Amino acid sequence: MTGTSPLPPLSATPRTEHRRLRGNGRTDRAELDAVLRAGFVCHLGVLVDGVPVVLPTVYGATADTLYFHGSVASRSLRDSPGAQVCVTVTHVDGLVLARSVFEHGVNYRSAMVYGVPRAVTDPAEKLAGLRVLTEQAAPGQWDYARPPSRKELAATVLLALPLDEASVKIATGFPEDGAGPDGELPVWAGVLPIRTTLGAPVPDPALRPGVPLPAHLAARPEDRPADPEE
Amino acid sequence: MTGTSPLPPLSATPRTEHRRLRGNGRTDRAELDAVLRAGFVCHLGVLVDGVPVVLPTVYGATADTLYFHGSVASRSLRDSPGAQVCVTVTHVDGLVLARSVFEHGVNYRSAMVYGVPRAVTDPAEKLAGLRVLTEQAAPGQWDYARPPSRKELAATVLLALPLDEASVKIATGFPEDGAGPDGELPVWAGVLPIRTTLGAPVPDPALRPGVPLPAHLAARPEDRPADPEE
Repeated sequence: MTGTSPLPPLSATPRTEHRRLRGNGRTDRAELDAVLRAGFVCHLGVLVDGVPVVLPTVYGATADTLYFHGSVASRSLRDSPGAQVCVTVTHVDGLVLARSVFEHGVNYRSAMVYGVPRAVTDPAEKLAGLRVLTEQAAPGQWDYARPPSRKELAATVLLALPLDEASVKIATGFPEDGAGPDGELPVWAGVLPIRTTLGAPVPDPALRPGVPLPAHLAARPEDRPADPEE
Repeated sequence: MTGTSPLPPLSATPRTEHRRLRGNGRTDRAELDAVLRAGFVCHLGVLVDGVPVVLPTVYGATADTLYFHGSVASRSLRDSPGAQVCVTVTHVDGLVLARSVFEHGVNYRSAMVYGVPRAVTDPAEKLAGLRVLTEQAAPGQWDYARPPSRKELAATVLLALPLDEASVKIATGFPEDGAGPDGELPVWAGVLPIRTTLGAPVPDPALRPGVPLPAHLAARPEDRPADPEE
């Protein structure tokens, strides 16, 4: 809660005011890891003709590297090799409903990673990176589905961004106007939790008869990982 | 499904290849409207020191204007008045599980809006814009909670972006490898639906005793608006 406006922004600080993670902040590093592993869709910021463009794309993260699909950014990367990008991952956990409109806000977890992405060309690293990306979105599928052929692998643009310069911002809890004069107002206040959930798997109408739902899909928890505090 | 890589990107086209909305595409305009109204958190791309920065922030949309919180972008806007931004809104609707890793993908709805944001300074427009933004995230709260004071209003940075140049990308349906040779594989294929849901309201521990949960919060549908096709 920033208290500066109704429904305050999710991230109130420009890049230079963010807490930086340079490998030495153990707690921050763990927070970054948790935020990155809780999702699989990021928003990639690149320059195209000098203008920022924000593209949603699929990613996966290891402890030190964020792998993401590069075809969305292929034109930018071809035109501006070595250019910096920003990758942002955001999880919205709840609406903070205050007594005043001004104190309304959002509970969220967000990570921003800055750097110059590297195209992954080594076939072994590409396979490993695609496995990370696929398993983060759909655990169990990499070993279950048909693996990429050499041709498919060559057709895939995979980028790697080191997790060297990143920031994490997390907002949790209740509105802050209960302690002030607004606390006397006869207005309900609290949090409306927001969760991302998985539904039951829907079979492809073209599914070959008799193919059972594999255990790793049947057993997936209905709720995706969420902030334990929210 | 682009079929070009495992878990294909959510948006495969650079800015210039997007379908443009210039006020004359009725169907596209309706799609843009539906995508924008189905959420309240966008990813704002701005330039800071020549580098793209992607900031999550809260927005609301009318038929022709996207209002968003400007304090996250205040430094960029102060340093680069008149600079173009990109606002992207993405809803992830499902995981597309194919027979091959290569054909995996994501069902989603995404809108990208380009333009030069305008700071809203007229108090009446600011109030109206903040109402749009607040009501989109928390319907019913604008008339229920204490309205902004003059001081609070002055402290709020609200930006307006015309919905003149925008694109919409929507992916729905099942994997496409059922019709090819992979269709013979004994591998389950289908869609794992992903939904964003609202939990039960959690009262602020500092809530004044005896304040009831208002009808507009008690009555909110548990599921947020979703693509009827998914």
